[in-house]
This record gives sequence, C-alpha cells and structure tokens, in this order.
Amino acid sequence: MLNKLKSTFQLVLFSMIVLGLCTTVNAQSLEEIMKARGLTQQDMLAAAKTYTPTGKMDEYYCFSSGGQSGHVIAYGVPSMKLLKYIAVFSPEPWQGYGYGDVESEELLNQGRMRGRKITWGDTHHPALSETAGEYDGKYLFINDKANPRVAVIDLKTFSTIQIVPNPIMKSEHGSTFVTPNTEYILEATQYPAPFSNKYVSLDEFNEKYRGAMSFWKFDMKKGKIIVKDSFSVELPPYCQDLSDSGKKVSEGWVFTNSFNSERYVGGFGKGNTKWQDRLPFEAGASSKDTDYLHMINLKTAEKLFKDGKTTEINGHAVITMKTMVENNALFLIPEPKSPHGVMIDPSGQYITVSGKLDTHVSVYDFKKMMKLVESKKYEGKDPYNIPILSMKESLHGQVELGLGPLHTQYDKEKGIAYTSLFVDSAIAKWDYLNLKLLEKISIHYNVGHLVTAEGDTVSPDGKYMISLNKLSIDRFLPVGPLHPQNHQLIDISPGKPMQMLYDMPFPLGEPHYALLIKADKLKPIKRYKKKWFKNRVKPGREKVVKEGNQVTIHSSLIRSHYSPEIIEVNVGDEITWHITNLERAQDETHGFSVDLYNIHGSLEPGETCTFKFTADMEGVFPFYCTEFCSALHLEMMGYLLVKP
Amino acid sequence: MLNKLKSTFQLVLFSMIVLGLCTTVNAQSLEEIMKARGLTQQDMLAAAKTYTPTGKMDEYYCFSSGGQSGHVIAYGVPSMKLLKYIAVFSPEPWQGYGYGDVESEELLNQGRMRGRKITWGDTHHPALSETAGEYDGKYLFINDKANPRVAVIDLKTFSTIQIVPNPIMKSEHGSTFVTPNTEYILEATQYPAPFSNKYVSLDEFNEKYRGAMSFWKFDMKKGKIIVKDSFSVELPPYCQDLSDSGKKVSEGWVFTNSFNSERYVGGFGKGNTKWQDRLPFEAGASSKDTDYLHMINLKTAEKLFKDGKTTEINGHAVITMKTMVENNALFLIPEPKSPHGVMIDPSGQYITVSGKLDTHVSVYDFKKMMKLVESKKYEGKDPYNIPILSMKESLHGQVELGLGPLHTQYDKEKGIAYTSLFVDSAIAKWDYLNLKLLEKISIHYNVGHLVTAEGDTVSPDGKYMISLNKLSIDRFLPVGPLHPQNHQLIDISPGKPMQMLYDMPFPLGEPHYALLIKADKLKPIKRYKKKWFKNRVKPGREKVVKEGNQVTIHSSLIRSHYSPEIIEVNVGDEITWHITNLERAQDETHGFSVDLYNIHGSLEPGETCTFKFTADMEGVFPFYCTEFCSALHLEMMGYLLVKP
Repeated sequence: MLNKLKSTFQLVLFSMIVLGLCTTVNAQSLEEIMKARGLTQQDMLAAAKTYTPTGKMDEYYCFSSGGQSGHVIAYGVPSMKLLKYIAVFSPEPWQGYGYGDVESEELLNQGRMRGRKITWGDTHHPALSETAGEYDGKYLFINDKANPRVAVIDLKTFSTIQIVPNPIMKSEHGSTFVTPNTEYILEATQYPAPFSNKYVSLDEFNEKYRGAMSFWKFDMKKGKIIVKDSFSVELPPYCQDLSDSGKKVSEGWVFTNSFNSERYVGGFGKGNTKWQDRLPFEAGASSKDTDYLHMINLKTAEKLFKDGKTTEINGHAVITMKTMVENNALFLIPEPKSPHGVMIDPSGQYITVSGKLDTHVSVYDFKKMMKLVESKKYEGKDPYNIPILSMKESLHGQVELGLGPLHTQYDKEKGIAYTSLFVDSAIAKWDYLNLKLLEKISIHYNVGHLVTAEGDTVSPDGKYMISLNKLSIDRFLPVGPLHPQNHQLIDISPGKPMQMLYDMPFPLGEPHYALLIKADKLKPIKRYKKKWFKNRVKPGREKVVKEGNQVTIHSSLIRSHYSPEIIEVNVGDEITWHITNLERAQDETHGFSVDLYNIHGSLEPGETCTFKFTADMEGVFPFYCTEFCSALHLEMMGYLLVKP
Repeated sequence: MLNKLKSTFQLVLFSMIVLGLCTTVNAQSLEEIMKARGLTQQDMLAAAKTYTPTGKMDEYYCFSSGGQSGHVIAYGVPSMKLLKYIAVFSPEPWQGYGYGDVESEELLNQGRMRGRKITWGDTHHPALSETAGEYDGKYLFINDKANPRVAVIDLKTFSTIQIVPNPIMKSEHGSTFVTPNTEYILEATQYPAPFSNKYVSLDEFNEKYRGAMSFWKFDMKKGKIIVKDSFSVELPPYCQDLSDSGKKVSEGWVFTNSFNSERYVGGFGKGNTKWQDRLPFEAGASSKDTDYLHMINLKTAEKLFKDGKTTEINGHAVITMKTMVENNALFLIPEPKSPHGVMIDPSGQYITVSGKLDTHVSVYDFKKMMKLVESKKYEGKDPYNIPILSMKESLHGQVELGLGPLHTQYDKEKGIAYTSLFVDSAIAKWDYLNLKLLEKISIHYNVGHLVTAEGDTVSPDGKYMISLNKLSIDRFLPVGPLHPQNHQLIDISPGKPMQMLYDMPFPLGEPHYALLIKADKLKPIKRYKKKWFKNRVKPGREKVVKEGNQVTIHSSLIRSHYSPEIIEVNVGDEITWHITNLERAQDETHGFSVDLYNIHGSLEPGETCTFKFTADMEGVFPFYCTEFCSALHLEMMGYLLVKP
C-alpha cells in the first residue's frame, strides 16, 4: 500500500514536471513523444541508462557464442549494439573467411576431422584469457559442441587464429573454460562415445563408451594452443556438462558436473534396433535423484602427463581413470540430478550447482570437500572405482530459488549471486553465504544462461547483468516461424531493485553463453602492420609472373583502383594472387571478388591476402572492390581474361 | 543570437525541471544517470524517439542488403534492433540453409552458374513487391552483383524461395527494382562483358562486350519468377548503373543510368597485357563530362518479346539494340558523369540523377522527355545508333547540393527530396520542384545510399530517414581493422529541423541499400502448416525403412526427444532422413545435427525437413537438438551407429 502511494506520488510529480517541460519547445516534444510512443517514467529511466549517442563509447564488451551459426558475437553494453559476428567455424564471405584466401582456408583446414572439412560449428561457451583470475583482454576461446573443437580468437584483430579438433571426443559441451593464468583451456565431453573412431555396439556402453576432460596447453606469448603439451583425462560415460576451473583456494582443481550417471541409453520410437521400445533418453537419464560433480586435480594430472603416465589414443595422451584414482586425483560428489553449470565463486571456496529438475541451488564448500579428500573419507565408489565424497558433508547449504535453476553468476557485493530460472522465466538474486533468496525479476522468456559484468572472475564488477533468453514470443516485430533470441539487459546496481533496461534480439544464431569484459581492457589494432605479411606487394612493384602454368600476380589496391587491372591467363593456369591494401587510413577496407570463381576477400588497411585458384573456366571475369570505399568505388574494377 | 538565447533559455528551464525531478527517487536517478552518462537534453529527446521497451513493437521494418555476406537484413525502426539476417546466397547453418537439408540445397543449386555452386553473393538492392506502386508486404527481391543472380524471399516465412541466375551477364548492379504491379523485376549489367561464355579480347570491347537490362517476369500468385516469360534488352557496353521503373505518368518505361560511356579499358600497373601502361579505369572512365541516362520502353520491349523478335543467347531471349531502336523503344539522354542512382519521384514525372563528381543534382522531367521522343527530336545518335535526346530540353532543372551527391529519396511532403552527399558526409533536404536547397544534416561518415519511409513508392510516409554510412571511425567500441557499417536514423518530421536519433552498427556484412515498409503490411506466419510437407511424419508413425543400401528414416521430434533415438546403419548406406517438428507452440524450434557429417537443420514448429547423406564413415555419431528448447534440452539426443 505504501509502495502504491509512493509510486502514485511519483507519477503525479513526474506528470507535473513534464507539464512544466511544456514551457520549452523541446520539453513539449518530450511529453508528446512519451505520450505518442506510450513510454512510462520507468521507460525513460531505462532509456537514459542505455541510450548511447553518436560517438559515445560503451563501458563493456559482451562476447557471446553464436550457437549454430558457428560465430562468436561481440556487442557493446549498455547500448546493446551488435559490433561483430566473428567468423570461427563457418566460412563467412564478408570477412573473406574461407572464400579463397589461403590463410583462412588453412585455418578452416586445421578444423578438419577424420580428414573432412566441416563448415559449421555449434559454438557454446566463450572464455576470455585470464591473468591472476582477471580477464586480461588478450584472447578469446570458443568451442564447437557438434564437432568437438576449440578455437582461439585474437582480440587485437577480432579474428580467429587457431582451430584445434579434439582427437578422442565425438561431442563436447563443458568448454571453453580457462585456468586462472590461462595455462590450460578446458574441454569436457557431452555425449559419451568410444575414444576410437570405430563402431562399438551400445551393448558395450558401460565398458567402452567414455567421457573425458581435455586440457589444452595455451602459450600466452605465442597466442597458440600447444597440442603436444596437451592431454586428456578419461572419465566415466556419464554426460559431462558445464565445467569450471578452480581459483584462489581451489586453484589447481577443476570441476565438471554431469547428467545421466544412470548410463541410460534411449531408444524411444520405431527405430531399427533392439533399443527401439525403451523410454526416451530424457526419462531414463533423469531417473536417479542425483548425478555426479566431478573433481579433478589438475596439478596431479599435469604431473602424470609430464611423467608419461599416459596412454596414446589417436595420437593424443590420455590419463586413464585408473591412473587418476590411484593418484588421488579424481573424485565424485553427488549433486541434484541433471544440473547445468558448476560455478566457482570469486573467492574460489564456494561452488554452486543447480539441478534443473530441483527448485534448489546447492552450494558446495571447497574446504569441506578438501577435508574429505585429504582424510580419504569416502562414501563409496562408482562403477569405475572413483571415490565418492559425501554430498551432505561437502555442502555449505542449499537454497530454494524456483523452477528450473540453471546458471549462476556473481556480484561485486560479497556473497551475492544471480541464478537463472528457466521454467520460472525469472532470475533470482540470492545470498550464497547466508543461504537466502533476496529478490526475483521476471524475464521474457525462459532464460538459459546469464552473465554479470566480469561475473566469473576473482573480482566481479556488478552493475550489469544480461539474461540470455530462449524464447522471444511477442517481443519484436515477427519474422516468421524462426524467432530471434532475446538478451535482456538488467541493472543490478546495489541498493536498488533490479531494473529491466533493454531487450535485444539476435538476427542470426542462438547465443548460449556470454561474458562481459570492461572495454578498456581491450586494445584492438586499427590497421595491419606491413611487416606481418611476407607476400606484401610494394607500390610500384606490382607484376604478373608466369612460369609454365603457374601465374603469380603481385597486386596492390588503393582508392580507387587495382594494379594491375587487366590480367590475361590461359585455361588451366594455376593462379596465386597476392593483393596488398596500401591504405593507411583507418576503416578504408577494400574487397576483392572474381565473378563466378567463388572468391571473396576483405582487405583491411595494410593487409595482404593471397588467393589461390585454377583458372578452369574460359571467359571474361570482372573483378571488383566489394566495399563501398570512395566516390569512385564502382570504378574500382578490372578484368581477368581466361583464354582457351 | 536569438537561437543561442533560446537554447540557453531552454537549457536553464530543463535544468530547473531536472532539479525539480530530484524530489522523487526515480527522477533524481534520471538527473544522476544523465550526468553520469554525459547525456544532453537533445540526447533524451532522441532516446524517447527510439527507445522501445520490452514487448512494444516497431512501426517499420527496414530491409537492407547484407552486401558481401550474401544476406538480406531485417531490422525494426525506430528501435534499430536487428531482427533477422535472411540467408540468400550464402549457406547459413543456424537457418539450416545449405547444410544437408534437401530443400535449401536445391535452392542453392538453382543458383549454380556454368554448373558451379557459388556459395556467396554480393547483395546490393532489395526491392519489395508492389501493387499499384505501393509496397504490399508480400515478397522481397534481391540481387547478387558478383555472380549475376536474383532471388525471391517470401515475407510470410522470411526465407528465400527462388534463385535465378542471369544467363547472359557476367556482373550486374542495377537490380532489383520492380514495376508498379511487380509484373517484372529489373536487373541491369554493371561491367560489360560478352554475352557468351567465351574469351573475347578487349580489342573487341566496342563490338562484342555488352550491357543489358533483364526483365524477370514475376507471378504474384505463385510467388515465382517465370523464367520462360522473361527476356533481356541488349545495351551498349557502358557500365549500366542503378535503375528504376517508371510509375504513374511514366509507367511502362524503365530507366538506368551509366558510367564509362567512354568505353575506356583500364590497365594501370604492371600486368601481363598490352593494356598495362594505361591510366587506371577510374581516370579513363571519368574523362567525359557526361554519361547516358538510358530510357527503355518496357511495353514495346514486352511486345517485341511476345512477338518473337528476339535472339536466343544461352537459352535466353534477348532483344537487340537494333530492334529496340527500330521500334522507338530505346533512348539516351546525357547526364552529369559517373552518376549513382536514377530515382523517379512519387508522381512519376520527375527523375533525379546525381553525378558523383558534380555538386549538382539534375531533375529530368518525364513529360519533356516524352515530347522529344514523340516528336523524334534527337540531338544525335550514339555509336550504336541509339537516339540521344537533348539534356537541356529534358531537364526540369539542377540544384547545387554539395560534394558527391549520390542517392535521392522522397518525402511525404510534395516536392521534398533528400540526397546523400558522400564526400560532404551530409544529407541535403531540398525542393525538387522549386529547385532549392532547404537544409543539411551531418552524418558520420560518408553516406552511400539513404532511405526514407516508403520513399520510393507513389506515397512516401516521411517521418524517418536512415543514412547508410560507409565509415564508422570512432563511433563504436573498436573491433579491429574491419569496422562495422553504421546506419544512422534521422527524424524528418515536418516543420522541424532534421534530428539525428540513433547510430546502429552492423556486426556482419556491408549493407548497400535499404527499404522501409510500414510494419502492419506484413503478415508473417507463426508456424508451418503440416499439409505443406509431403514427407511429414505423423506421431506414432515413426520408422526406419531399409531397402538394400537405401535407409529412409521417418523421424519426429518434440520436447525433449527424437523418435527414434538409436539408429544403426552400415557404412555406405545412403540415408534419407525425414524429420518433423511436432510442436504447435510458437517459437519452439528444434535443431538437428549429426556430429562430423557437416549436417545441420533448424526445424520450426510444424516443419518437416529432409536430410540426405551417405553414411561413409564408420563410428558412433551423436545427434542432438541444437536449439535450447526446454529444461531437458541437453537430454534431447540420439546415436547414429555406422557399422563397418
């Protein structure tokens, strides 16, 4: 009642003030605009918190996976303006990624699996490189759930620089996550499968299907995953899920949770196997009340790897469960069934797990877990002889938050966490030290993951939270049966109720997981340095060199012409076309395209690209600048003439 | 001075009012927020005009080409929220476009040229279907400049339904534009080339290289280009540029302008041809003061086509220049050199052309042109015997607007037009009837095209204008050397100065041209109708049928399982996998992916997709739902087992 009176009072005052504003022309407009557009006082506060006028910069970058589009997405916060879809696993012509440019073709070829080029990915969980548990703004990592791979993105150029396929997994999910100094990038299996590439009957599921956690060694100086220094730990055929690395007190340990510790195999429907009459996987995989949180001693695993206590599978070093158990490096702890997410708090001591089918979140205490580990006090062992620690004795406590708790992020304020509630379509703010629910905010609709500013580092920023919603019915103008996703920006400033600020649709892809990093930590370059390119073409040195059927074109471009503009070759000639963009001016990108040859390049100032193709079609093929570069942009063209 | 006093007065008043606002908690926040974020009073007005709270709908759709990304982009106005990147020429896994789904693979195969699959496009100019010169919200058309093709997008589903390659062009640009009842979709050449696919020396440029205008017959009922009812008109080897269809008084005529009527061939730099020592194309193509506006009588051309007065080239009917000239159906009029854009005003009488290297815009009067045509009063003929009309006698007049005038759109207010000034980085508002400049607004930076609400129809809406800027230096958080493009929303409400409202970056692609349509004209569907799919699988009728090495899987999916979940085949089996999404709930999309097989599908409610592939790898391949569909989304999976 008091609240109602208060808000009525505010409304009256606001109206009086807006009437007051009528005395000036612009102020009159404000009232008119608000009325015409149906905006409330609250809306104007939200507008003021997000509206970012021309030339003003955002405070944060948000990096989000692009889901099935195979991208990583960068956008600004609080404006929620999309800045770049970074091409990772899918070819992307605008970025000249995978359309004849040798460098990007080589990158996509790095991602080959079993010899095959895979031209898309299901990106899920981006990770930012960290130094001492803080984002350092240097590199970004991303996984491919469908075709188990991890990629490295350089934040100087916002482009992909490495793709590493996983040699033993057939599917993954708990990736990418990094250790506090980015020593390792974590990658955990999703659906168990044999490590080999052979057919193995589901009859042998328990014995021959496996999960794993891979540790990709990252060299911060080289900006590169060092494959030979990387290894995996064999895990039981439970579906490992999200993972996280310990920090501070828990540094040196990593965690992953799991579902289907039942080891159920589905079969629902009329297939062509003996499994066809079984209950669907979703039912069988959720029959027990608990699954297992996995606790892996990375320091020990690293030592075992360095000591050669590994088995080589598909050319990759794997530490068996047996070896891990013998060395007290692998433990399980029961957790509420079918969880999604294991999130270590900024202190490194508390670990939050939410069972999606439970209404509680569970807070584990790493110190309690370690006591059990050190005293070798086990409740039992799983079928693979892995010691099980007591859930009860590991828990700090549980809090009832609502339906479908899913993912947790942390606030600047000590002990404060936010957990997404998928089924409730809400986010709960709660105190994980004193174990109480504080506040809930509705979202629209069905939040999957959420992110707070630097919310998974050792020092979260608070201030902003984004809800990564799965459904967007009636939120935006309709675009047919395939809806955009909806990220909602929420103000989580201390001392005030949470406020919904902005709805942001995604025009492409289904983001799964996101990170928010302070903008001033990134130092992207504005142009490429000439010296980076061994094939760069100096102005005046353009030429065409022909040796047999090998034609090498050393070409430059600048507003508004290619040099040379006319090139004649014979059918069957193998073309190597080096092109250097001679521009120094920022943003003076030029494009390159040879009509009908499926070639497209994007050349940023200072950049050299090399295109290789065989001139296997006779004819006249215009090439031209595909980026509107100048008043005479349309005149920036030439002809490739292919003689019979 | 008066203005300064007035704005000072307003500022004081505004400050007093904001101080007044301090008496309420929220109002206090408003002042604090504005101060903290450096927002001015003007900013708040712009914020109020664009901020669109959760669940509120935009007034307009903007459809923009995606440039080199090969997409068409849809966004809402005034919120400037991106809604969908519609996959057209480039495969796109999120939309299940070109990743094993038979329907989209067939679409992309329609776009083959000379037998080759081309997996990208350079989309330039979207056109909306029209009825009586008004957008009707039914179909959208888009061209591919690089690989001359046009595509049809259905606005019920926001998806591509047809791709038609141009059989005679090697490059195009003046496309797509439609006649007032969408009888034809226009496509004009950019860079001249031989109509055949043979090598022809540049020595024969004048004689054997050609431009053309293609007229694609569109059937509104079928939503389909009827290729056999389509034809082209041969044009001289000038670089034809943007085009437009006449309307009202000029209905039945179409126009295209051109550059390089010099027929210059470039060569700059050290190539391997005799052309290598010539000036660059940009210089040679701009040496004359004027180029030619082309004027084509479509009614006559249509009759000539129907009467069989055509030559068949590559299986396509072409009306020669000679035939057109003999039938008084093709004329040229000088226009200031190197123009970009020929824009017919809402009345159909006035045609605006801007020479990019001139500071004027030229307004031609169709009635004057027709008088010259009817009286056969020619100034001369071009080298191809095409009659040239007098520029002076065709002009209504010229207006000096600024540097680099480029593209013009019209206002609701009679006689008012807006022209982009690329070099000035500004947009001019001017009166094309009374021939005077009215106002300019600065943009950031280098505007190419621009669009006003329904600004190229017979009844423009006014209200909003968008500036499609080419450079975005310092506008947004940096993302490396490749910058986003920047669309700026401008308020053009009558009786007030133009106001800059919003800067919107594009995260992918370089939009070239856009259209704004009133949102209520579109009626997108929410789910697919079952009856549309001949291979739909009814619940309970799922099965796997094996005949020899042909395996047909009739599969369904619904939250949260596939049916069947386990499928066993042999290496070498050819799989046809029909999958029906049984959901009725809006937005309940499910995905489908077979790990390592480069297959991805997106199944919207009610939709059936068919995937075809050969099971040519032995092993265990999880398949799973790639769209976060439910609390048990991760449990929605199965195994494809391929036996040796």
